[in-house]
This record gives sequence, C-alpha cells and structure tokens, in this order.
Amino acid sequence: MAPAITYRLIKEEKHTGARLGEVTTPHGSFLTPMFMPVGTLASVKSMAPEELKDMGAGIILSNTYHLWLRPGENIVKKAGGLHKFMNWDQGILTDSGGFQVFSLADTRNITEEGVTFKNHLNGAKMFLSPEKAMQIENDLGADIMMSLDECPPFFESYDYVKKSVARTSRWAERGLKAHSRPEDQGLFGIVQGAGFQDLRTQSAKDLVSLDFPGYAIGGLSVGESKAEMNRVLDFTTPLLPGNKPRYLMGVGSPDALIDGVIRGIDMFDCVLPTRIGRNGTVMTSHGRLVVKNAKYAEDFTPLDDNCNCYVCRNYTRAYIRHLIKADEMFGLHLASYHNLYFLIHLMNQVRQAIMDDNLLEFRESFFEAYGFNKEKAKNF
Amino acid sequence: MAPAITYRLIKEEKHTGARLGEVTTPHGSFLTPMFMPVGTLASVKSMAPEELKDMGAGIILSNTYHLWLRPGENIVKKAGGLHKFMNWDQGILTDSGGFQVFSLADTRNITEEGVTFKNHLNGAKMFLSPEKAMQIENDLGADIMMSLDECPPFFESYDYVKKSVARTSRWAERGLKAHSRPEDQGLFGIVQGAGFQDLRTQSAKDLVSLDFPGYAIGGLSVGESKAEMNRVLDFTTPLLPGNKPRYLMGVGSPDALIDGVIRGIDMFDCVLPTRIGRNGTVMTSHGRLVVKNAKYAEDFTPLDDNCNCYVCRNYTRAYIRHLIKADEMFGLHLASYHNLYFLIHLMNQVRQAIMDDNLLEFRESFFEAYGFNKEKAKNF
Repeated sequence: MAPAITYRLIKEEKHTGARLGEVTTPHGSFLTPMFMPVGTLASVKSMAPEELKDMGAGIILSNTYHLWLRPGENIVKKAGGLHKFMNWDQGILTDSGGFQVFSLADTRNITEEGVTFKNHLNGAKMFLSPEKAMQIENDLGADIMMSLDECPPFFESYDYVKKSVARTSRWAERGLKAHSRPEDQGLFGIVQGAGFQDLRTQSAKDLVSLDFPGYAIGGLSVGESKAEMNRVLDFTTPLLPGNKPRYLMGVGSPDALIDGVIRGIDMFDCVLPTRIGRNGTVMTSHGRLVVKNAKYAEDFTPLDDNCNCYVCRNYTRAYIRHLIKADEMFGLHLASYHNLYFLIHLMNQVRQAIMDDNLLEFRESFFEAYGFNKEKAKNF
Repeated sequence: MAPAITYRLIKEEKHTGARLGEVTTPHGSFLTPMFMPVGTLASVKSMAPEELKDMGAGIILSNTYHLWLRPGENIVKKAGGLHKFMNWDQGILTDSGGFQVFSLADTRNITEEGVTFKNHLNGAKMFLSPEKAMQIENDLGADIMMSLDECPPFFESYDYVKKSVARTSRWAERGLKAHSRPEDQGLFGIVQGAGFQDLRTQSAKDLVSLDFPGYAIGGLSVGESKAEMNRVLDFTTPLLPGNKPRYLMGVGSPDALIDGVIRGIDMFDCVLPTRIGRNGTVMTSHGRLVVKNAKYAEDFTPLDDNCNCYVCRNYTRAYIRHLIKADEMFGLHLASYHNLYFLIHLMNQVRQAIMDDNLLEFRESFFEAYGFNKEKAKNF
C-alpha cells in the first residue's frame, strides 16, 4: 500500500541545507517550504477557496477541537468529508484538538487514558483520547492528521516535561493503531520536549521508530524567545528523517518562517496573518503597517508598493483604513487577503533563494527591510 | 451639452405597460428594470466589486450621509471620486443624505434653509441643506445623485405633507442650481406626497417642470401596506415622463419589485438582501428560508435548487448554517451573495417576461411558488 503522504526532496540550499521539496497528498501536491493558512472552523476567516488557490495555497489547516464541537464531525462525515463540506479540493491538515483542550487550563484533567475537560461553548464535560482524536480526524477526512500530544509550557520543569514526552510517545503509538484510513490519510507525529535537548532527542527517537509519514515540531512559539526557538530547532530538526516532511506548528511571523526554513523546516501554519489583518495590521516588504492609523487616512498608495496581490493592485491604504474603521467586513477581508498572500509569496521567494543558493543573503536583505535588524524590533 | 444620464425605452409589456429599457451613465449602461445593491459606506457589505459585476449588477448605491461622516467627502474627492476610491468602474447612485438625517427624529430641526441635527457617531451638531447635499454629492462623484427631499411619515397629516411637498419642490430647485457637475453627474428629483393623490400630483408636476434627467418616488416602503404602496404607484408613475428613468426608493422584497415593475418602475434599491443574509435568512424560488435553523444542520442541498449562482453551485445549506452559527464572516458573505444574486436574477426574469409579454403570468407563478399568495404571507 502506497503511503497517503509522500515527500520528494528537490534541492538543498548549499550554505544552510534548507530544503526545497514537494509534498504529495491524496488532494494534489504542493511545493515546500510552504505556509498553510488556518481555517479553524472549516473556513479561512473571510476567504473564499478560489482566492486561496489564486494566491498559491496548496494546503490549509482546520481545527479538530472546533469542528468536533461545531458542526460535529458526524455532520462533516455525512457531507462527504471536510473537502466536500467546505468546497476545497486541495490538501487539508487537521490538528489533533489537543492544543486547544490543554489551553483550557482551569477545567481540564489529564490522565494516561486521555484528557477530560469542559468545552468553551457550553461548559459540557468532554473527553479526548488518542483514539477519540483519531476517530474525529478520520471522520473529518483531512489529508494530513496530527497525533494527540501534550504541549506543556516551554518553561515547565524537566521532570514534568520528561513524563509528558513519554506519554506523548505512548499516545502517538495508540493513535497510529487507531488510525482507520491509512490509505487516504497520513498521520504525523509531534516531537515535544520544550527546551531540553535530551528530551527532544528522546521524543524524536520514539516517534521516528513508529515510522510516521511526516513529523511536526510542537511546543514552540508558546511564549519563548525566537532565539530559544531557533536553538531548539538547531538540535531537533537533524533528528528527523530526510525523506519525510517537517512541520513547525503555530509559527507565522516572517522572521521565524525564514529562520525555520534555514533550520530544515518544510511546513508552517499560524492564524497570525488573518488575526492581525482583522485588527487592521498588515505585513509589507517595508515592515508592519497599522493601516487603521490616522496617518493613512489620505494615503492613496497600496498597502505594499512591492506587492502584486489583488488587494495591492486594486485598493488603497485610505480605502482599507476607512472600511476597517467603519467595521466593514470587506476591509477585514482585504487586510486578511494581503497578509496571507504576503506569507505565501514570502515562501515563493524563499524557495527561489534555495534554488539560487542565496538564502542567507535573502534573509539579511529581508530582515533589514522589514525592520527585524532594529533594536526593539516588533514581533512580526 | 449631452445629459449625463439618458434613458432608452426598448419595449413596453403588452398587458401592463411595464418597461424594458436601458439607462446610460458616464460609467456604462444597464438594462432596466434593475435592482441596485446598496453599499452604504462605499462597500456592499462583504462583497467584492468583481462578484457584483459577475452577477450582473450594473449600478450600486452608496449613502451620502454615511460617507460625509466617514471618511468624509473630501477624502473621497482626493481619491479621485467614489468610483476610484472603492474600485467600482460601473454606475453609482448616491442618495441625498436626507433620509438618514430625518430619521434622527430626536435631534433634528427642519427649517426652510435646511436641517440641523446631531450625527449618530459622536453627537456633533451638523447642518444639511440642498446646497450642502449637492456639494457632498458632487465631491463623491456618483453618476446619479438624489435631491435633498423631506420624507415625511406615510400617515402624517394632509396639511403637514402639503407644506413638506412644497418645500421639497423648492429644495429640488435649489439643488439643481447648486449642482456643479451636470456634464458628468445626473441629478434626480424625488416625488413625495405620502398617500395623497393630489399632493403626489403636485409634487410630480413641480419636479417635472424642472426637467430632471430622472425621477424617484420616495416616501414609500416606510411602514404602509404593500396595497397602499401599489395604490400610490398606480396614480404616481403615470405622472412621470416616459423618456426618463423612474426609481422606487428603498424597496427590495421580491413581490414589491414585481408589482413596482408592473406599475412602470425601472430602478429599485434596498439593504434587504444583505441585511437578512447576515441574519441567516435567504430568498429562494420556493420562498424565504432561514438557513440558520436547526433543521438544515444535515441538509446537503444548495440554498435554492433552481439557482445557478456561485453559492448554490458550490455550497450546501449545512455548511452555510454552520458558518453563520459560528459567526464566520464567509457564511454571512455567502448568504449575502446569494440574496443579491436572487434579486438581480429576478430582474433578469422580469425583463424576459416583458420581452415575452407574459409578466402577469410570471407574477402569478412566482408569487405562488414564493408563498406570497398564502394567507399571512411573510413580508419577503
């Protein structure tokens, strides 16, 4: 039986080893490094599927916890799966639901069997286990599924993280056994271990022995510094097999994407571009721009004069500012659209830099123009 | 000098006299009868201009009062006018701002000179006169502008309405004199007079003598019954010249559109399709459908099985219900899109029925299928 998810390495950048590759799923293939837009509730907020395709998004994310609650995975299954339900015929990745459940810190209780919690909508008591996560994800039918893991705080104690990593490995194995559709869905394992090199090493070793078709690095971008994150990637990515895709979870700031690619990462996801867009902040080749600020009221230039997206070809800062100030949905849409395009286009540029073996030069000029080289640089 | 707005009568329906025609503006022409989507704040809520064009909207509305306040007509003027500001290269019509101002009943004071009021955003005292309305509308630069009129309640006293009609005529003349761009903007007069035939007659006579390039019928769809509205149209429309377009303001329910066309109306506008869409109600060939109701949770059919719009070709009731229940913008967008398409497509069908001289048969079968023939029929 052919695996549902395969990875083909096309080229390694000469100076950094950054990977240009291709991931093939039952719903088409996409080039990596790739940024994946997040459609939490089976919709990338405000975006039509055609718009995501136009900008080159080959795969999107959706959230198991949220879809489990609304509309319920049974309804998605009856619809013929998530692709049909949401009218998206390219790749989809679902998380395990664990991250959201563990973040309900006040109401959850973790045992070896799984986690009991009260859901955020109506407070009803619910139970999530590796097997339950797998059943939900099999019903949703995404191309790539994530194992149920525990994602402890980055600065948790060594002893706690050690136990947590061991449990995450046991849960990964249980999920793999419970996975009922290996022919059309690929399950990824998630390497945990916070900032501890030996625990990351143990986690990676455990998971690699289970031979997943892909691996994620979890437990990062949860409050630690970017230097900390890069340090963990420096020693974790080399532990993962070269013939499988590598996914850094929950990372979406431009600097972290580039630095992740330099450390061998292939896939990223984050709500950042749509979330900050809805708040009136956009990413540009000259750095972040808070378009709702008064100084843009009469600025009839595009969000980014170096951008060729639909928004920058057709709308001005003044118009987008007006719409966002007036709570017009179309303004939130335009800012979200531009930000998603920005990150997907950034990954295009990064892939080109890998081809051209000048990724470090690209990083330097991008960081300089964006403002990441400044003292007290903004976070994105 | 050629008038900015011209009307060409193509055909009158044999049994009713309903008109198929064409209105030409400085930004292209459109066939009538036509329903015009409303973009209050320079955006038809949630809709991209390309989507409106795809569904055949040849002209849209925007609101003078709202744009005066936000972003300010001076900014729109600096942007190069409303068309450039909002990226819409077809027809635009702006109202005079009067309707919104008069609806601020508690804070406004009407004199012969104009109306003083406190705006709804920050309570600042403002003044609107026929000349001020014209200056704002000239700065906005829409193809069709409306005169500042007074729109009294339908069941106001005869004496009040008589005085109000006379003032509206004087204001119309002042607006015409203040209009600074007759070469590229057409100003329409608005016939008032509530339900009084002699006052409607006087109002029409006054305005027709001023030779506007088009005429609106105002003061309807403000709480009176549809039978009352049709009665007023029966005696008002024949007072208007046959070589100018006729616009019934603020009407958007499907039955009222058809009954208006039968009485000689060419243009309509209303926020109804987008407003009810955002609340989870859609118009279908089988009548209104509250898609957010629980009974559609597992309904994997389109909103309307007779509809060929983008939404009905790609999405199910179950998906749209899920999105709206979860407050996802894309759900509000899909419902708004479908409703706008429904009314614009209805006008296509009406134009065909005029060509085929079977408008009354079309009315009967549409009303029967929609449920307007039922006792206690819903309002839309």
